[in-house]
Amino acid sequence: MNACLINGTATHSVSTSDRGLQYGDGVFETIAVHHGMMSFWAAHYARLVQGCERLQILVPSEAVLLQEIDQLKQNQLDAVIKIILTRGDSKRGYRIPNPAQTRRIVQCFPYPDYPKSYATNGIAVIFCKTPVSENKYLAGIKHLNRLDNVMASSEWSDSNIAEGFMLDASGHVIQGTKSNIFCVQEGVLHTPDLSCAGVAGIMRFEVLRIAKTLQIPINIGPITQAQLLKADEIFITNSIIGLWPVARIDQQIFTIGHLTQQLLQQLK
Amino acid sequence: MNACLINGTATHSVSTSDRGLQYGDGVFETIAVHHGMMSFWAAHYARLVQGCERLQILVPSEAVLLQEIDQLKQNQLDAVIKIILTRGDSKRGYRIPNPAQTRRIVQCFPYPDYPKSYATNGIAVIFCKTPVSENKYLAGIKHLNRLDNVMASSEWSDSNIAEGFMLDASGHVIQGTKSNIFCVQEGVLHTPDLSCAGVAGIMRFEVLRIAKTLQIPINIGPITQAQLLKADEIFITNSIIGLWPVARIDQQIFTIGHLTQQLLQQLK
Repeated sequence: MNACLINGTATHSVSTSDRGLQYGDGVFETIAVHHGMMSFWAAHYARLVQGCERLQILVPSEAVLLQEIDQLKQNQLDAVIKIILTRGDSKRGYRIPNPAQTRRIVQCFPYPDYPKSYATNGIAVIFCKTPVSENKYLAGIKHLNRLDNVMASSEWSDSNIAEGFMLDASGHVIQGTKSNIFCVQEGVLHTPDLSCAGVAGIMRFEVLRIAKTLQIPINIGPITQAQLLKADEIFITNSIIGLWPVARIDQQIFTIGHLTQQLLQQLK
Repeated sequence: MNACLINGTATHSVSTSDRGLQYGDGVFETIAVHHGMMSFWAAHYARLVQGCERLQILVPSEAVLLQEIDQLKQNQLDAVIKIILTRGDSKRGYRIPNPAQTRRIVQCFPYPDYPKSYATNGIAVIFCKTPVSENKYLAGIKHLNRLDNVMASSEWSDSNIAEGFMLDASGHVIQGTKSNIFCVQEGVLHTPDLSCAGVAGIMRFEVLRIAKTLQIPINIGPITQAQLLKADEIFITNSIIGLWPVARIDQQIFTIGHLTQQLLQQLK
């Protein structure tokens, strides 16, 4: 079983009164560890702070979390750190207890064994029928209400398919079940606006930052399914996989273009 | 602490690998016990079955749940039974494990101590800023992704306010933070359509059933905030409170009308 600390204590049990379990009342992060070092820790911690501010959850200090992460990952070279922060225990009912005691659940997992070809040759993707949940007050942060991602992830069993793309109720492409989506059209890097749905990924921020420094024109806005299928290049990102080019959506083939390769190179 | 059985065993601890905690991957019910008897059990169990079907979660048999509930409530006359069904444990990642083992968390709570005046004199309500989350694949069922209700519930501290009303992104009234909404306009009983958001409450079903037998005209459809404020009568329902008339929304006063009193009487 994976190593786990809850509020600093080694255990795998959480109270049934935990509001994370009762209502999904919390946020989480998954962080890649390579060569013993966490990738983009500052950005992950900043998103935890932002998510907790949005949900009015008291955020633990960086020092406390770092100490617990260090204790868990020890000498592992490659791993995944997952941090869940919940609003802690309460009696029955949605209303937030005062005071609420944030619960820190810090876990260390083995690094997943994705085929190397995904990054080099690209992946096959489908469009999911399950739409993203829309709520402008909750959009962007990585909260624990993830049933839309779960149900979309269940829509395929073909192991050749590595990701599913999710739309909003208006038919705009928002995100993959576990990733953010980018496409390139006539030299412009497009990625969906996430102000009403979706999670603003750490690797999405990083790709946008790199694109800016490379002076690549960027457009963050609505993208329809039809617009996406006309793109010259498509790729997805998340903190654990990094960047995977999209080689196929349903039956349509895409080539791994210059800009995708440039960004892949920069991320290494 | 409240009495709790997890898969039939007395405990208050759940695994950190539980998908209810990780993703809100499950459903729940809260059931009123009066005079030692559960109210509307058949309807609650039917909704559990419907929710589990929607989420492709294996539902426990009625007999198993009834045996566990009986064990917990024993000789208590008034209580609240809460059942949480999660998709059980899994490794990291949204994809549903195969096979997945449903986890049953059955809890017994004291009956809440609401002021009696709420049912007789009506309640004061505000409109919340937090919108409901919209997803037509998840709407109607009582799943564990309840951050919208949690955040809306946090919008007032005045203890004279008993409920907050939540709108969708288009400005339609959908539900209270913990209740369904009805209004009466020129003898017609209106309640919001819940096909894109909200929870279809058991007491909502019961009120609609009674209204049909009383041959009261019913309209289930979109209701704007302005339409609601023009209503002759407004009331809310849920399984624990039953029916509470609305006496005030923000500064506007409503009277407890004939139809509300008729339904209150029928529910007794």
